[in-house]
Amino acid sequence: MPLPTIEWEGDVEGRIRLVDQTLLPTELKFVYCEDIKSIWHAIKTLMVRGAPAIGIAAAMGVVLGIKDIRAKDADTFLKELKQVTSYLSTARPTAVNLFWGIARMERVARENKNKSVREIKDALLHEAIRIQNEDKVICRQIGENGAKLIKDGNGILTHCNAGGLATADYGTALAVLFKAKEQGKHIKVYADETRPLLQGARLTAWELVHAGIDVTLICDSMAAHVMKQGKVQCVIVGADRIAANGDTANKIGTYGVSILAKEHGIPFYVAAPVSTFDLSIKSGNDIPIEERSPEEITNGFGRKTAPEGVKVFNPAFDVTPAKNITAIITEKGVITKPSAENIQRLLGTTIS
Amino acid sequence: MPLPTIEWEGDVEGRIRLVDQTLLPTELKFVYCEDIKSIWHAIKTLMVRGAPAIGIAAAMGVVLGIKDIRAKDADTFLKELKQVTSYLSTARPTAVNLFWGIARMERVARENKNKSVREIKDALLHEAIRIQNEDKVICRQIGENGAKLIKDGNGILTHCNAGGLATADYGTALAVLFKAKEQGKHIKVYADETRPLLQGARLTAWELVHAGIDVTLICDSMAAHVMKQGKVQCVIVGADRIAANGDTANKIGTYGVSILAKEHGIPFYVAAPVSTFDLSIKSGNDIPIEERSPEEITNGFGRKTAPEGVKVFNPAFDVTPAKNITAIITEKGVITKPSAENIQRLLGTTIS
Repeated sequence: MPLPTIEWEGDVEGRIRLVDQTLLPTELKFVYCEDIKSIWHAIKTLMVRGAPAIGIAAAMGVVLGIKDIRAKDADTFLKELKQVTSYLSTARPTAVNLFWGIARMERVARENKNKSVREIKDALLHEAIRIQNEDKVICRQIGENGAKLIKDGNGILTHCNAGGLATADYGTALAVLFKAKEQGKHIKVYADETRPLLQGARLTAWELVHAGIDVTLICDSMAAHVMKQGKVQCVIVGADRIAANGDTANKIGTYGVSILAKEHGIPFYVAAPVSTFDLSIKSGNDIPIEERSPEEITNGFGRKTAPEGVKVFNPAFDVTPAKNITAIITEKGVITKPSAENIQRLLGTTIS
Repeated sequence: MPLPTIEWEGDVEGRIRLVDQTLLPTELKFVYCEDIKSIWHAIKTLMVRGAPAIGIAAAMGVVLGIKDIRAKDADTFLKELKQVTSYLSTARPTAVNLFWGIARMERVARENKNKSVREIKDALLHEAIRIQNEDKVICRQIGENGAKLIKDGNGILTHCNAGGLATADYGTALAVLFKAKEQGKHIKVYADETRPLLQGARLTAWELVHAGIDVTLICDSMAAHVMKQGKVQCVIVGADRIAANGDTANKIGTYGVSILAKEHGIPFYVAAPVSTFDLSIKSGNDIPIEERSPEEITNGFGRKTAPEGVKVFNPAFDVTPAKNITAIITEKGVITKPSAENIQRLLGTTIS
């Protein structure tokens, strides 16, 4: 069973328990956040990371923040709540899910403004737990839908970490593997280490070892050789953003893996919640690619590994064209041969 | 001008000067070997590495070893020479070129056994310098032949280090870049860092910066994205072993790069001396692939980056099929669309 990444303990006066992801893979330590400053610090320092997990941390962080609000009436409470959410927003200003989680909490507070402060506080805790539970349900449904594509004895390659640590507990790409394992299927996973930040080595390998799944770590440059040896029957990765036509932005290196899979006749699956689709983006050409610090490459392991004067290119993501994607696995179903038409068909009722 | 990797200073009583490659890329330091023990140590600890450079170090190491031989007659000299070469052979027992270099020196000693000890010693120094000069000529001819394929303004991707540091001074794949630069062509090189041992980041990037060539370091996983952006007009890599049909073993990751190049319509060149062909091997299927220590991946740079209990697969090489290779650049000419037939045609007179 995957480990809960983040959990609420107790009532509105309770606390957050979370896995300190900065200590993985060498140490599994739980951190307890009793007040808003400690969860702010945990988000800031990447103790908790991954879009859905940050959304949950933000919502639960709001509950920590309202502990200290002594207001007797809803109006004053809402004003003080605004201070709480403004502060929390500064923890990681580029994380979309931080704002999404906070916005959901603010809306619930407003919707309950005719109630007592105590009732509003309860409603907020309830909403935070709901956000967490929604994520659990979505991830399990992705696992359920995806596991149908996995056969007993399959070798599966994954890149980066689309695992439980990025969500409430079950992940997206890794949900498919957890579910296949629960169904009694014997699988053998190859985890790309995923330079520069090694999420595959540090997080995916850790999660799979923890879940008792057979996992072999390789360097990113070894994926083609492993495929050629016939050891891989499918590739499953997560997604950061999916355009209306199915083009998918994910961790740098994903696009290359999709080409290698095509060359070897291996199905390439993307597993992601429907919230990952951004229908305002027509194709992958319109997805901006963040470039990150050169030091991640030149000083990645606590030691300088490149000469002075060398230029560095460090894109954080790349875009895999829909034509390289065999299917996109969502909580609402599997989109085979993704295209603008069949994506619209699946999402039609949920995203306008 | 590329830096001489290894040089002999003085007469038969002289010494070796070499670049300590273990200190690169952060420090350029010359090491002087005055006796056989110090060159043994330099080979053992990888201060000097790369097949041709090891061959030269072995030959020059023999010259250091015979300094102490006080024999007055050739027969006694040859016996004592055997002790020198036996000792030197233990420095790196898996390096084929170590034995190749030593064997050439032993043959020259035998061929001169009717001469005085002084004359034999001179002949041995002469042979060591000849081995070095042959390598220089071969590498420059590879550069000359390959540079014709490079156009002004080209972006060129390379993987691992087939550079001057592995040879006398000019390299094989990098010889093509050095020559193109000398011809006044403006080139922009993308160097894969080449996990797990980072020869691209540590050595190739250093050599190109040192030679004043525009070089950008990327992680191996970024090559596909860089190609998609239209930044690469050709790929050039070295080779460890080429089978009779053109299938080429080279550093792990090369095969994947060849697939990415094909997908993007980019020519993929292998640059190697004809001595790299092993016509006793029919195809790449028969080339054994060395597997190396898991620690190179899990503990690469003084820090543990993977969990306890994870399996690791660490092949040192992969095989690029001839069909993915646009041409093989040798000192004797360029083999376009390599096949058993046109390889035989080029090598016919040199290798039976």
